[in-house]
Amino acid sequence: MAMYLQKDGIKTELSYKEGQNVLEVLREHGIEITAPCGGGGRCGKCRIIAQNAGELSENEKAILSKTDVENGVRLACCVKVSDGIVISPEGGQGEARILVDGNLGQLKLDPSVRVRHLSMEAPTAHDQRPDTQRVFDTLSVKVPFSKMNALPKALREGGFDLYVTDFAGEMMELCKDEPEALGAAIDIGTTTVAAYLYDLKSGERIGVGASLNAQRTFGADVITRSDAASTDEGKAQLPKLIREQVVSMVSDICIKNGKSINSVRHITIVGNTIMAHLFLGLPTENITKAPFIPVNCEELTVNASELSMGLENCKVTVLPCVAGYVGADTVAAVIACGMDKTEELTLLIDIGTNGEIVLGKKGNMICCSAAAGPAFEGAHIECGMGGVEGAISKVWLKDGEVKFQTIGDVSPKGLCGSGLVDACALLIREGVVDETGYMDEESELISENDEGDPVFMIGGGVYLSQKDIRQIQLAKGAIMAGVMSLVKEYGCDVSDIKRICLAGGFGNYISVDSACDIGLLPAKKRDVIGPVGNAAGAGALIALMDKTALEDASSAALSMRYIELSTYPAFQDLFVENMLFEAEE
Amino acid sequence: MAMYLQKDGIKTELSYKEGQNVLEVLREHGIEITAPCGGGGRCGKCRIIAQNAGELSENEKAILSKTDVENGVRLACCVKVSDGIVISPEGGQGEARILVDGNLGQLKLDPSVRVRHLSMEAPTAHDQRPDTQRVFDTLSVKVPFSKMNALPKALREGGFDLYVTDFAGEMMELCKDEPEALGAAIDIGTTTVAAYLYDLKSGERIGVGASLNAQRTFGADVITRSDAASTDEGKAQLPKLIREQVVSMVSDICIKNGKSINSVRHITIVGNTIMAHLFLGLPTENITKAPFIPVNCEELTVNASELSMGLENCKVTVLPCVAGYVGADTVAAVIACGMDKTEELTLLIDIGTNGEIVLGKKGNMICCSAAAGPAFEGAHIECGMGGVEGAISKVWLKDGEVKFQTIGDVSPKGLCGSGLVDACALLIREGVVDETGYMDEESELISENDEGDPVFMIGGGVYLSQKDIRQIQLAKGAIMAGVMSLVKEYGCDVSDIKRICLAGGFGNYISVDSACDIGLLPAKKRDVIGPVGNAAGAGALIALMDKTALEDASSAALSMRYIELSTYPAFQDLFVENMLFEAEE
Repeated sequence: MAMYLQKDGIKTELSYKEGQNVLEVLREHGIEITAPCGGGGRCGKCRIIAQNAGELSENEKAILSKTDVENGVRLACCVKVSDGIVISPEGGQGEARILVDGNLGQLKLDPSVRVRHLSMEAPTAHDQRPDTQRVFDTLSVKVPFSKMNALPKALREGGFDLYVTDFAGEMMELCKDEPEALGAAIDIGTTTVAAYLYDLKSGERIGVGASLNAQRTFGADVITRSDAASTDEGKAQLPKLIREQVVSMVSDICIKNGKSINSVRHITIVGNTIMAHLFLGLPTENITKAPFIPVNCEELTVNASELSMGLENCKVTVLPCVAGYVGADTVAAVIACGMDKTEELTLLIDIGTNGEIVLGKKGNMICCSAAAGPAFEGAHIECGMGGVEGAISKVWLKDGEVKFQTIGDVSPKGLCGSGLVDACALLIREGVVDETGYMDEESELISENDEGDPVFMIGGGVYLSQKDIRQIQLAKGAIMAGVMSLVKEYGCDVSDIKRICLAGGFGNYISVDSACDIGLLPAKKRDVIGPVGNAAGAGALIALMDKTALEDASSAALSMRYIELSTYPAFQDLFVENMLFEAEE
Repeated sequence: MAMYLQKDGIKTELSYKEGQNVLEVLREHGIEITAPCGGGGRCGKCRIIAQNAGELSENEKAILSKTDVENGVRLACCVKVSDGIVISPEGGQGEARILVDGNLGQLKLDPSVRVRHLSMEAPTAHDQRPDTQRVFDTLSVKVPFSKMNALPKALREGGFDLYVTDFAGEMMELCKDEPEALGAAIDIGTTTVAAYLYDLKSGERIGVGASLNAQRTFGADVITRSDAASTDEGKAQLPKLIREQVVSMVSDICIKNGKSINSVRHITIVGNTIMAHLFLGLPTENITKAPFIPVNCEELTVNASELSMGLENCKVTVLPCVAGYVGADTVAAVIACGMDKTEELTLLIDIGTNGEIVLGKKGNMICCSAAAGPAFEGAHIECGMGGVEGAISKVWLKDGEVKFQTIGDVSPKGLCGSGLVDACALLIREGVVDETGYMDEESELISENDEGDPVFMIGGGVYLSQKDIRQIQLAKGAIMAGVMSLVKEYGCDVSDIKRICLAGGFGNYISVDSACDIGLLPAKKRDVIGPVGNAAGAGALIALMDKTALEDASSAALSMRYIELSTYPAFQDLFVENMLFEAEE
């Protein structure tokens, strides 16, 4: 029995078990394929080209277009593997556009990991201190039990003149020659993972990397991912996948820059609460159902070996979370944009499937998570797609003509979040869409798609439909209702806000004007709105480079009071109100 | 090829490798045999009965008597194993007399391990604290990373109503029904190991046990033992042997008392510095050569699993040591006799191969280790033997006739430490031995042994020779020189001492009067001298039952200034002076 994968001109035989579907086989072989619904046959995203794949399933018949079927497109989760089947990836699974840079400002260099010269007198009959005490008295470094066995020999062979690497005062390594000490900051997004590798001694950047989260074959969003983690396979695979990915990304940057991964002494991790739990191998099932309880939110530092990461003498710190839906990524963004240190009232928004929102200033912050849904990530949008090559990312009118730009400057394949916001804003500004979200079918910007529905055709067959507008209304309504709930709870007014920080990829790529025009952001504060890049990643990096920032993160997490919107009395009213297109406060 | 062990009427075949000697084979099969010199063919103590064992070696010819040879006695370390050899133990390897009880006084019950009821409200949308925080807020118990995975399920299955066992505020166990919590205190002597098992909830004693140290086949004294630990075999075997013995002793007490070893949550360990190092698997090679440097002297608490002890949810605490030759046993004795808490000047003496001596009071103590040699343990004494069955332990005159008592009231086989001191004191009191240690051969108490040498014949062929008296002089001279060095260094006078505590087996069994008469203890302080039993074991137990006592032990260790006698200017003079029999200050 054989099935084959045809890719880049190479045909590879893949082993499989009777009864498996293609998605399962690909996962088992570590081949990444996007499956937002986690293999449930609902989302239609796990598209492959297949030959000899048998009859279409009912789900495929419902989801795939006539053209798709003609082109041999199938859904990986719906195709049972059988002898002789040949599959190949469809073009759409391209490289993602991933934001790795946050606004770092000046990085303070005072990391948890230090490398210092240890020079001591040899013991004598008049100075009989034990080896561990001699080290402690000299450098204030404690020798943990696991390092005691090798200590006496190393000290004597080194003539009591060596280099000590310590983590927060605990010895990690004792070397005759001065060793390197590298650190990695990792931002584990549900979709993408960003890695930053730094030299902990000089503070210099060695390199960065980004890739799609290897867990995504188990589902695109946190809920599907978490559900998958409750199965035996998922429980074993999900933590393993992300840990291996982190090591592999860091290793890649090391190799490219002539460094050894064995010199990595500290890795800081941020991510939403579910990503943090999955990385640590903690159960997430109580986060995804009411009342949404995490196992642990406190900062956690463990040995990489405890996570089976295959790294010796390396500590891993997961930054603190606040609640089930306000995670370490948000806490990291808070310390990165400095709102925990300023007296100016600041609003921080990170828009994704959930929009994490923080309002406040030094010592007093409140936060919430607004369930925006995946519209801004291209899901549930007729021509929607992620921010990958071929996605329309900008839309504008020039001399009455619709203009657009795609990622990678290739022909358009769909619409990503920033393009979606632009397109919707354009229709509002042109009066084609009214306050209630109704699209004027009579407008000259509106034409018909293949199915005969009235749509705003942007180009290359990519369009925006009335249904899409409704999705945008739901999404932006949730975000603004979240903002307004916090404003109400904080007892202030939108006009009191001095700065609005947009964190994350979406916040970085959207047009602030378009976002204000559709009411996703408070229009009257347009002038103080600015992107802060990958603030979560920046926060992870700051915590890596400066140990007091790690403490700041814990303090910040403690002073961020979480508001549960699902039971917040005013939320429903604010949601309905903010679904309209000019409602804003 | 086969060799056989004949024991208790049973003949067992033992496997062996070409070229091994009997001692090595017995060790490999876990059969304990005393070998003070570690198998060097020098001490003559590893006696066995052997058939078909080939020619006598030169060492055996020099060491064994004619009667021995006739009786088939051989030395295990000198006999190369060959096909058909049959060996059996000689009678002398009997059960040891081991002191397990110290003077405990009233035990305070406040152990590091606590079992408490955890009753919490279930989480709601208005109380979304993470599981770990909920536990901490209720009981001030932190959940370590290793316990987080199982926490959510356990809490919910238990309806948030459970029992938590913690160690110093860190969760060890979470149970639906109230669990047991047992603790063991272990005194690892070079020769003997004592174990005390207690219920940590009620404070009740469950049982005690004692046995010979399983490491003794690698040598009787710490030096030989330490030398053995520097070989590959010893490095692997010595820590393993003692850890397994501790578990096995605790397990035996559990089984006898209907308890489960899996309920043991804490084990406190005391022992001299080398025993502590060997238990922890730390190198001892720098302790046995000048300037005598231990790897670590601080208190160390680790998980039993880190020591491969096969116990889950169990912490092991090794109490602090002071220096290479003042160990955790002495520190434990200090806290047990309370000299770290009293304003009265106290002298603590634990006489063994090394006599550990501590002088001082609350906040200011000095200590030393005097190399007495193994005379008081029966070694280097012609008829010497350990405190086992058949040893003469008491000697006195009644109506001019020599009387004696043996351990186990059986016929005499030799002389143990307390008998030795009695016999020597008797000769001094009767004027048979003068100040210089010269034995008057003309005395009617003196007769001739088989070799025609003049000896004090006690009974059953057991005697004390002139050479033995010289050994006693060396030993008691070292101890008293140690005491007097401390007195000098402390800047006090012997008359200022308010209490003299004799710790350990030897101190417990000897006659104080005899010890004073031979000048092993200061005669003019006779009235304040008293045994404190196994004070080391008692200290281990106090530290088990009362967590503040553990802190006291660390404070005591820090305030015990160590005096290195080998380089102490006055020591040599004091040694020579105190070798005389009435010198004493």
